[in-house]
Amino acid sequence: MRNIDASTITPAVIARLAHTEDPRLKQILTSLVTHLHDFAREVSLTEDEWMQGIQFLTATGQKCDAKRQEFILLSDTLGLSMLVVAMNHAKPAGATEATVFGPFHVEDAPTMAQDADLATGAPGEPFFVKVHIHDLAGQPIAGAEVDVWQADDDGLYDVQRPELGDTRRARGVLHTGAAGTVRFRTVAPTAYPVPTDGPVGRMLLASGRHPWRPAHLHFRIRAPGFQTLVTHIFRSGDPYLDSDAVFGVRSSLISDYVRHDPGPAPDGTNLDVPFYTMDQTFRLAPAAAAG
Amino acid sequence: MRNIDASTITPAVIARLAHTEDPRLKQILTSLVTHLHDFAREVSLTEDEWMQGIQFLTATGQKCDAKRQEFILLSDTLGLSMLVVAMNHAKPAGATEATVFGPFHVEDAPTMAQDADLATGAPGEPFFVKVHIHDLAGQPIAGAEVDVWQADDDGLYDVQRPELGDTRRARGVLHTGAAGTVRFRTVAPTAYPVPTDGPVGRMLLASGRHPWRPAHLHFRIRAPGFQTLVTHIFRSGDPYLDSDAVFGVRSSLISDYVRHDPGPAPDGTNLDVPFYTMDQTFRLAPAAAAG
Repeated sequence: MRNIDASTITPAVIARLAHTEDPRLKQILTSLVTHLHDFAREVSLTEDEWMQGIQFLTATGQKCDAKRQEFILLSDTLGLSMLVVAMNHAKPAGATEATVFGPFHVEDAPTMAQDADLATGAPGEPFFVKVHIHDLAGQPIAGAEVDVWQADDDGLYDVQRPELGDTRRARGVLHTGAAGTVRFRTVAPTAYPVPTDGPVGRMLLASGRHPWRPAHLHFRIRAPGFQTLVTHIFRSGDPYLDSDAVFGVRSSLISDYVRHDPGPAPDGTNLDVPFYTMDQTFRLAPAAAAG
Repeated sequence: MRNIDASTITPAVIARLAHTEDPRLKQILTSLVTHLHDFAREVSLTEDEWMQGIQFLTATGQKCDAKRQEFILLSDTLGLSMLVVAMNHAKPAGATEATVFGPFHVEDAPTMAQDADLATGAPGEPFFVKVHIHDLAGQPIAGAEVDVWQADDDGLYDVQRPELGDTRRARGVLHTGAAGTVRFRTVAPTAYPVPTDGPVGRMLLASGRHPWRPAHLHFRIRAPGFQTLVTHIFRSGDPYLDSDAVFGVRSSLISDYVRHDPGPAPDGTNLDVPFYTMDQTFRLAPAAAAG
């Protein structure tokens, strides 16, 4: 295989994959190489542009650490994440829709008791959330794990605040009882920009895009016998619902965060500031039958 | 833009690029998003596979440092580098062909005098190289910068040997005089595997590909009024000439490394071990006329 030119390179690389043991890997690499080369040919990529691409990808990888996943952010802002979600979560009628996972989930969020305050110091207006986990027949699901995470009133997740170290706040894991319900206090999330201090931020700026996401709570809901649901609940009226930087908004996932004047709150306390409440039902699709 | 599905996501992302100021960036991002999404749809990428891709790219970025460029290695092994070279270096008849740059060039290689020993301690059989830099009419080019770098007899570049620290060896920069010639001593390069201790190595292994490159010297030749030439000179008879892991071999770039029995060497010394010589002419294309 000598004297490769701009058209023979693609079959030459694909031929080199002939001995890939895993047929799925072979399929993925073959398609990847084809599209990568087609892209480079389509735009007649120059060597300077290629090097800028190498440097962009390198910087993106080097921006990642235990608290920051810049490649997920890149995938999110290029619409790949939402595409993958859309392809893999065609839900049966009545099931709650999925949306992007995002880069801010952590696996070690604290387990919280019913009615706990997830905010644990995060700034924001008090927000009382009641969540019902149902099956498609409307029956409550006991023993469901409800993993919640969110930005605070400054638009920041805990992992974006270096001063917090490894302290977790405005996130937690709760479990449903027989009623299929979890209740918690937190702070009302606000719209926020995705991190713009890295390569992805520079890409957004260079392409004239704003980095804002409409306010939302993240949920990952897992229960034996049901498909895991990763989704958000957005806040109605948010100005960014139609221009989410990561293309994640679904109409069915927009909810009223109901405002209340100062006074008695759902947890029995008496608040001297306004507060919000939300009551939301998630309907989980059954796990796929074993093949 | 709500309720994106697997087909509407692509025009939605492209619409978001409407305000990209630089038309070339807009063209590149549009093509990139289109091919990225087409790839994901074509293979029906699962979420697990997407996450493996995120982790692969992250690990590739994090393997990069001042001495290691794993994304260039990825581009090389996927044939993208050679494609970009082929598209950008269609040379006029008679000009020496280009090949891949590779990940092992450094900008601070030492400047060497005529007849210097570039090896400076690198293991290998003595190799005496004479290089002529000509224009397309066969006239010598004075004042050309000849940047040479190579692996040693163990198949390692200096930057791959942590024990060397920042010591440079088996690389150097020479300049032609009026005769358009540089001469240097070094060690004969041998075939070597590209680094396999990182994500790209795992990809090669998983796809049943060997990581070997045929023996070669790297050259970057720059001269005022001429196109910069980045190329290799491969060693004739190498077993990997037809299966270079990075697809870089051109027949016109294969040369005899002529073996000599122990005895008088080109630099006037008398060697008690066999040695090699090579005499190679590079013909540079004129710089493109200003537009």
